[in-house]
Amino acid sequence: MATERLVVVGGDAAGMSAASQARRLKGPAELEIVAFERGHFTSYSACGIPYWVGGLVPERDDLIARTPEEHRARGIDLRTRTEVVALDVPGQRVRSRDLDSGSESWTGYDQLVLATGARPVRPRLPGIGAHGVHGIQTLDDGQRLMDTLERTAGRRAVVVGAGYIGVEMAEALVGRGYEVTVLHRGEQPMATLDPDMGGLVHRAMNAMGIVTVSRAEVTEVLTDEEGRARAVVTAAGDTYPADVVVLGLGVEPRTALARAAGLPLGPSDGLLTDLSMRVRGHANIWSGGDCVEVLDLVSGRTRHIPLGTHANKHGQVIGSGVGGGYATFPGVVGTAVSKVCELEIARTGLREKDALDVGLRFVTATITSTNTAGYYPGAVEMTVKMLAERRTGRLLGVQIVGGEGAAKRVDVAAVALTAGMTVDRMVSLDLGYAPPFSPVWDPVLVAARKAVSAVRAAGV
Amino acid sequence: MATERLVVVGGDAAGMSAASQARRLKGPAELEIVAFERGHFTSYSACGIPYWVGGLVPERDDLIARTPEEHRARGIDLRTRTEVVALDVPGQRVRSRDLDSGSESWTGYDQLVLATGARPVRPRLPGIGAHGVHGIQTLDDGQRLMDTLERTAGRRAVVVGAGYIGVEMAEALVGRGYEVTVLHRGEQPMATLDPDMGGLVHRAMNAMGIVTVSRAEVTEVLTDEEGRARAVVTAAGDTYPADVVVLGLGVEPRTALARAAGLPLGPSDGLLTDLSMRVRGHANIWSGGDCVEVLDLVSGRTRHIPLGTHANKHGQVIGSGVGGGYATFPGVVGTAVSKVCELEIARTGLREKDALDVGLRFVTATITSTNTAGYYPGAVEMTVKMLAERRTGRLLGVQIVGGEGAAKRVDVAAVALTAGMTVDRMVSLDLGYAPPFSPVWDPVLVAARKAVSAVRAAGV
Repeated sequence: MATERLVVVGGDAAGMSAASQARRLKGPAELEIVAFERGHFTSYSACGIPYWVGGLVPERDDLIARTPEEHRARGIDLRTRTEVVALDVPGQRVRSRDLDSGSESWTGYDQLVLATGARPVRPRLPGIGAHGVHGIQTLDDGQRLMDTLERTAGRRAVVVGAGYIGVEMAEALVGRGYEVTVLHRGEQPMATLDPDMGGLVHRAMNAMGIVTVSRAEVTEVLTDEEGRARAVVTAAGDTYPADVVVLGLGVEPRTALARAAGLPLGPSDGLLTDLSMRVRGHANIWSGGDCVEVLDLVSGRTRHIPLGTHANKHGQVIGSGVGGGYATFPGVVGTAVSKVCELEIARTGLREKDALDVGLRFVTATITSTNTAGYYPGAVEMTVKMLAERRTGRLLGVQIVGGEGAAKRVDVAAVALTAGMTVDRMVSLDLGYAPPFSPVWDPVLVAARKAVSAVRAAGV
Repeated sequence: MATERLVVVGGDAAGMSAASQARRLKGPAELEIVAFERGHFTSYSACGIPYWVGGLVPERDDLIARTPEEHRARGIDLRTRTEVVALDVPGQRVRSRDLDSGSESWTGYDQLVLATGARPVRPRLPGIGAHGVHGIQTLDDGQRLMDTLERTAGRRAVVVGAGYIGVEMAEALVGRGYEVTVLHRGEQPMATLDPDMGGLVHRAMNAMGIVTVSRAEVTEVLTDEEGRARAVVTAAGDTYPADVVVLGLGVEPRTALARAAGLPLGPSDGLLTDLSMRVRGHANIWSGGDCVEVLDLVSGRTRHIPLGTHANKHGQVIGSGVGGGYATFPGVVGTAVSKVCELEIARTGLREKDALDVGLRFVTATITSTNTAGYYPGAVEMTVKMLAERRTGRLLGVQIVGGEGAAKRVDVAAVALTAGMTVDRMVSLDLGYAPPFSPVWDPVLVAARKAVSAVRAAGV
């Protein structure tokens, strides 16, 4: 049997999971694997960067699941600091550049995995490229931020954006002793929640000493003579002094290469794949992780959801396919969890806005309960908001904000969404009950009961 | 409209939930509600008794959700210390005895709710009725135990049985400074788990200083001259000194009344109901809580599962039905959670033994992972065992033992069981991921991946 060559572009979660799984299924005699990575690191947890910055995780290398050397020891020809600069689909080859020497060369492939990830959104504003303005996506990004923090004596940080990264970085910087101001465009932080639930996050952030400024449009970063950021200016004309600026405006798929090669992109510029994670229309090109769009099983649309857990699953599916096995990634329901200080934040499915966008009519139910039996020591509040389709009562989405145990409770709703359950069926779900773990009616079930009433009251 | 009379027998979770829900839907002009309760208390959390005994919950009354006075204020004629001693189904009446005066009388009903609960299994052994031997089911039982503990200077406790109550009471007694010995019949404690998982509980109990004796058959309780328990003797001839003895041998439905009246009982002596919680064959008699058997949706059989969360749901369904509404209780999947010290214990669906009993062929997969990202501070181990049907890959059951966050993870499996998911579908479930809450592959998904492999390896 002739040896096939698999080329992997991108050495983090999706790419290296794919490479590793393919290697498990096919030895070097059957499959040669070449992987290109622009940065210094492989297979790391980008989601862990805020906890390293905040000092909870002591060492950068704690975030690395598998080093380049470990991958090489498993028979993967991994080339770090090597960027793929062109993709020749008809010629089945990629052109790579050694970022240290600048030399370039072509490498042919039989199978190709595009796992180029995402990059932080960086609006074109005066000063946005200054030293001390950091987007956080790769471990190299995190290292650069840490270098700035160690070099800078000042203790004023401005975070632009209040999504997951913004909120987590704000907490991390508070943990390092910074005075943190979060500037964000929305009415409330965490626009991945409905504003009423975002308001709970707002209060928690303020309670931990973070200044939040809503409806703030950043227009400029002011710099000093040495080109270092010193303040952020908003459209309202306000100036926020900053020794460091962190961009938390989200990320966008890194798909310029794919676009240039004519591969199919979705509305968010993410690659479009089939259920086996092959790029649509290309039997030997696979893609996964932060550079693809995934099918949202609730809305029926593709969405860009950069998240390590999806990237790992994609990699597993791709590696199985490349290795001659069979696996699929059916899609997502939009689950995400986070925390700011003691407050846990979770969502799955559709927000009100999402439901309206896809033409679904719905009712909402919001309840506040506790994480454990109310009489159990340390019981803390938890607020659950549930969206259900009118008439059918089908669950559409859940948002939870609360103390310990709030975040992972959303998993119940994630499974129920996947199964297409009605809120009526959810009321009698057999969830674990004991006083240290739940009130006798789990908060998710209390919300379901209220949603049932709302569905009935709404009629058709 | 003539006023109907609802009679409720039993004033805890199922009975009083039913009464309260019926009252919400129908006012006193439409529905008279009379409720009989043998004990002093109503609507309390029996599951909370171990935490009161252990000192975590300061006051007995913290466990009471609604007092008799509060029920009366809502228009329920509640009669405590009043036991129903006969049921005349053709005559539509119950005979009750005032336990203080001894006087008896008949009360007619249009609708009847039997919520008589369960009683601790108490084998017929010499000395079993001695002072200081306590079963724990009602709040009155808990009060009697507390009285013994306060009266007794000695600090040696023997717990007979190592199920939920036995394990929780052992921990509670350790919390009060007792030397605790647990005698149990099985190979491992927590026979609601497979023995391999029970072994993890065994080690945790020993680590907290609890002596466990397996395969121990209690034959006698020795008493002193005043009739107080002083030691427990086993079939092996061993004698365990005891200042207090707690029976944790499980409970059995309290259905003598129903049996005498000819109502249908299942194999565990629990009442059999339809989906609306009406006693089979009786349109105006309802039953719920610890005195009924419930349909196990995985095995297809009825089982006796005394658990506050089911009792509350039953009460809600019955109250809706009595009040002219509509609700059903579709059944359970056998979820239960508990803890011993820091160790969380959970199960749902079928154990190996259960699957064999109903003729299901299965594979198992057991994995150990962590509750959070491995690098996150405080990450602790979690072991997940999964059973899947051979050939189809349908999920049959999950058991989890581990540190913080282990117990409620079983809810994901409970919903997946309810939906009839395969382990293959579970692998790509969109569960919440962030480093403080989960590794990038949630432990339940890691187990599902291994189960998928096991299903494939097993063939048909």
